[in-house]
Amino acid sequence: MRLKVGEPLRVFNGRGREFEATIETASASSVHVRLGPRLEAAPEPRVAMTLAQAILKGAKMDDVVRDSTMMGVAAIQPIVTERAEVTRSSLTSGQRRERWQRIAVSSAKQCGRATVPEIYEPLEFDQVIDALSKMTLPLPGLMLVEPGAAMKTTSVSELDLSPQRSATLLIGPEGGWTLTEVERAATACRLITVGGRTLRADVMCVVALSALFTMWREF
Amino acid sequence: MRLKVGEPLRVFNGRGREFEATIETASASSVHVRLGPRLEAAPEPRVAMTLAQAILKGAKMDDVVRDSTMMGVAAIQPIVTERAEVTRSSLTSGQRRERWQRIAVSSAKQCGRATVPEIYEPLEFDQVIDALSKMTLPLPGLMLVEPGAAMKTTSVSELDLSPQRSATLLIGPEGGWTLTEVERAATACRLITVGGRTLRADVMCVVALSALFTMWREF
Repeated sequence: MRLKVGEPLRVFNGRGREFEATIETASASSVHVRLGPRLEAAPEPRVAMTLAQAILKGAKMDDVVRDSTMMGVAAIQPIVTERAEVTRSSLTSGQRRERWQRIAVSSAKQCGRATVPEIYEPLEFDQVIDALSKMTLPLPGLMLVEPGAAMKTTSVSELDLSPQRSATLLIGPEGGWTLTEVERAATACRLITVGGRTLRADVMCVVALSALFTMWREF
Repeated sequence: MRLKVGEPLRVFNGRGREFEATIETASASSVHVRLGPRLEAAPEPRVAMTLAQAILKGAKMDDVVRDSTMMGVAAIQPIVTERAEVTRSSLTSGQRRERWQRIAVSSAKQCGRATVPEIYEPLEFDQVIDALSKMTLPLPGLMLVEPGAAMKTTSVSELDLSPQRSATLLIGPEGGWTLTEVERAATACRLITVGGRTLRADVMCVVALSALFTMWREF
């Protein structure tokens, strides 16, 4: 950052507050700023959305974190699924959660969002379903599945979406969910589809979040 | 393609027809196949959508062609706008249209779509508005604008979208539309927004198409 003492900037705390500020001192290792008036940050969606995303290969998971932050999710829950080619221990040793958190901060900055979604520790698929099953709501989750799955599915535009304060959206890996996973999820999730085409795994979150936010009249 | 004589494959004509086929002869330069039964291709959206996209920098326009083909657009109209850093003659000499057409074919293959959108010759912004103005429908275009634009805008989820056979969606470049462009477009387009955040230019098409297809109950 080539900013000098006295120059104006904007700072945000990642939890919805944004301020004008001025640089007071700046060295190679630290910067002190004086906070000015609070700014009106762009409003957050009324539905706090948790994206429970199966971990994708290589840099694709980075793209999902970047794009879903831009779309306005409240939190991201990475999941290890049967067809995801990773283990939780490899994610921990690779400090992937910390990397994704940094990407979320940088994406929030870029899109003018004063709230940074929390990146949760990766969980196994069954742990996520267990957590959803313990909620008091009937079928609290929304699981995105391929059209023509064996189980009963609903098109996003036919969903009966009551106004709600939060929701969890489950999106699978490149190879899709296994039948066992879909059957297990059906106890806690509605199975939803978005159109009849095969979508690339790394843009599914943008498509599904856009469709849901349209249904909830956020868009 | 490492396929050998006698091996089965699927072929499509790019205009909605897909067939089973078998390789009859194969050399380094050509392949002859025998067509088998016609396959049921994934249905196309009922609304034939033309994406009129301001040309983005570098490889980002390639991504837009790839992603909007996956989303199901019927045609792509590249537009040269005031803030797009290209000219029509540089696009012609760089054979960009031909490149985008190849990308559309490859994306259609990947997502199991038997229809390849047509990529039109790039036009100037004014030419696109002139063409829309000549249509008999009132306000035939939908122009995506930043929230808080000077003119009257409508959220996608509040659009009164009658069932229609075709629509044109205009999306701007990285730097956005100029005020003059927005004012000029307002004579032929409804100005629409998708939420309050700043979206990256290269994913705007996925967000806006998802929202519109949800409103039209394609999703």
